[in-house]
Amino acid sequence: MLGNFSYHNPTKLYFGDDSLSFLKDEMKNYGQNILLVYGGGSVKKNGLYDEITAILKECGKTVAEVAGVMPNPTVEKLREGVKIARESKADFILAVGGGSVCDYSKAVSVSVHCDDDPWEKYYIRFEEPDCEIVPVGCILTMAGTGSEMNGGAVITNHEQHLKIGHVFGDDVMPKFSILNPKYTMTLPKYQMTAGIYDIMNHICEQYFSGEDDNTSDYISEGLMRSLIHSSRIAVNDPQDYEARSNIMWTATWALNTLVSRGKSTDWMVHMLGQSVGAYTDATHGMTLAAVSLPYYRYIMPYGLKKFARFASQVWGISAEGKTDEQLANEGLEAMESWMKELGLVMKISELGATEDMIEGIADGTIILNGGYKVLDRDEVVEILKASM
Amino acid sequence: MLGNFSYHNPTKLYFGDDSLSFLKDEMKNYGQNILLVYGGGSVKKNGLYDEITAILKECGKTVAEVAGVMPNPTVEKLREGVKIARESKADFILAVGGGSVCDYSKAVSVSVHCDDDPWEKYYIRFEEPDCEIVPVGCILTMAGTGSEMNGGAVITNHEQHLKIGHVFGDDVMPKFSILNPKYTMTLPKYQMTAGIYDIMNHICEQYFSGEDDNTSDYISEGLMRSLIHSSRIAVNDPQDYEARSNIMWTATWALNTLVSRGKSTDWMVHMLGQSVGAYTDATHGMTLAAVSLPYYRYIMPYGLKKFARFASQVWGISAEGKTDEQLANEGLEAMESWMKELGLVMKISELGATEDMIEGIADGTIILNGGYKVLDRDEVVEILKASM
Repeated sequence: MLGNFSYHNPTKLYFGDDSLSFLKDEMKNYGQNILLVYGGGSVKKNGLYDEITAILKECGKTVAEVAGVMPNPTVEKLREGVKIARESKADFILAVGGGSVCDYSKAVSVSVHCDDDPWEKYYIRFEEPDCEIVPVGCILTMAGTGSEMNGGAVITNHEQHLKIGHVFGDDVMPKFSILNPKYTMTLPKYQMTAGIYDIMNHICEQYFSGEDDNTSDYISEGLMRSLIHSSRIAVNDPQDYEARSNIMWTATWALNTLVSRGKSTDWMVHMLGQSVGAYTDATHGMTLAAVSLPYYRYIMPYGLKKFARFASQVWGISAEGKTDEQLANEGLEAMESWMKELGLVMKISELGATEDMIEGIADGTIILNGGYKVLDRDEVVEILKASM
Repeated sequence: MLGNFSYHNPTKLYFGDDSLSFLKDEMKNYGQNILLVYGGGSVKKNGLYDEITAILKECGKTVAEVAGVMPNPTVEKLREGVKIARESKADFILAVGGGSVCDYSKAVSVSVHCDDDPWEKYYIRFEEPDCEIVPVGCILTMAGTGSEMNGGAVITNHEQHLKIGHVFGDDVMPKFSILNPKYTMTLPKYQMTAGIYDIMNHICEQYFSGEDDNTSDYISEGLMRSLIHSSRIAVNDPQDYEARSNIMWTATWALNTLVSRGKSTDWMVHMLGQSVGAYTDATHGMTLAAVSLPYYRYIMPYGLKKFARFASQVWGISAEGKTDEQLANEGLEAMESWMKELGLVMKISELGATEDMIEGIADGTIILNGGYKVLDRDEVVEILKASM
């Protein structure tokens, strides 16, 4: 059943290999001072930085920069960005990069005009912004997080061993996002496949919850089938534009609030994976991959019907003559084969997690209650050990 | 492959049995003078009219009314609404009803401040609005057209035997829509099933086009599977809230531009059905149902792979040991059985079409070129005859 909810997604998307041409027009809607935010410099190597700064110059904008946003943006980097945004009197933040750069830009956007410390306010006390929000636009170079069309912003505090996401409201969502699949083609395969698994898991987190029948789950099944199909092509030929464009579009719809409307959601794989990330600084999608199967195999008995449906509707496995349990197991086996086909990391030990970190990772795992089984701390430890 | 496109849907949705409670807050965003638009009076019988006018009174609004908007809104009625909107200096149009009332309200919204005749400007010359647009909000009482989250507005000119749709841009889309599945429960079964088929055909029109692989088609398959499942429940028990809520939500996403992104589309069933409607004034969804199978069976050989995929992915028919043609045929047979299960009208003669109208209906059928076969006029006549 679809419960009561509202839906509003104001982000405007420009998609395709010609999508950067819309930047100039969009820039007319915003003020003089642009804060250009990007990551480790790949945008300089591949020429995108030059293209974008040329367009901003043509628009007569004044540009300040935050460079070097890392894959798991830190609270120190956030404070640095806020300082630069204030000094440059930023009217608009233009994020150029993957989900980390987009997330980071949103975190800056709600902190520039805020007197409190942003980590304390948004990530510890989970308060909502009550200040002016600087508008954000994104030029996406990696498919995965869905950050280009949602209000999410994950920040890591290494000192506190915490990696926490805050999902902000409509006002914080990007005003526009430019999605050019070609920009994702220069990514190393490791980042591409980590992004693909991030997408898959975003959908699973929303799918594996609730007993009721709702349209959202059917849309999720369609998105997962498209992703599985295109990922198999992309992993063999990363230059396949059709596959890369479908993956990019699926990423956006996997986490822009649509497939969670009217239903409960889980998100425990993210809670486990983010805590692993806080300890190891490993690539987000790989932390999710490494904890997923131990988690899903553990909760499967509590959501058997949904796991059986997952097997038949997502993986196309025939239900004939099988118990729900057999079918559900075959579904997870099919997912495991696909994950290995993509070359995903299947153990947290390969990401740098060690036995002595387990207790700390368990302490940092926020326990949610939307899934088929509400875990206790011992179960979290058990799943983490099974992920080693 | 996903081509270049943009996506922006600014409509805010309030969904569920408590959704009317948001009307009061929304009204704060708009001016003093409200034009309340509704249909044949069922909203007065079921108490919705009283509820809404009480809320508007509480908000201190001045209310003018256009009552009696008919199922296929006419150009004369459009001109009447424009006159009332001008006289009452409408700041906001509140549509209460099904797709016809929503479509009509959008057509009024682009005509109030326009000097040209709206029929000539928007439906004959297909021009875009270059005047102030009066904002529209919808309170939906029937699931089907998707008008609650798109820019479409179909108007009928009986004198000219033309029923034409204009799809306007973002500025004309409803500012908000209130979707309460309970409001759809008082509809007669004939209207409910016509709406269900309208939804199905909206998806088919966007699905049956193109050879490339794209995520949009996978989302469409998910929506169709949800619709088929819920419609079978609703036709046996129209009071099943779960089924009616899923149908209502599917209707919105079937035609709010999402599932057409990056791909070509067909829309010939609508062109045929709308021309039948211009001659018979029959219920929209039933005109689509009555021409669909003759049309799809005619074009099937030209899009065989997609029709085979439709059979397996939407209807769950096993492909084992079958040619594409056998499989595709079984898919259309499954659709035919489902249509009969819903009690849909399968012949245009049952809708009032007579042999002597065929030539005129063919003349009024706009021939599009996005489907698997571009029809010539003789083929249109052939399909119409097969639909008798």
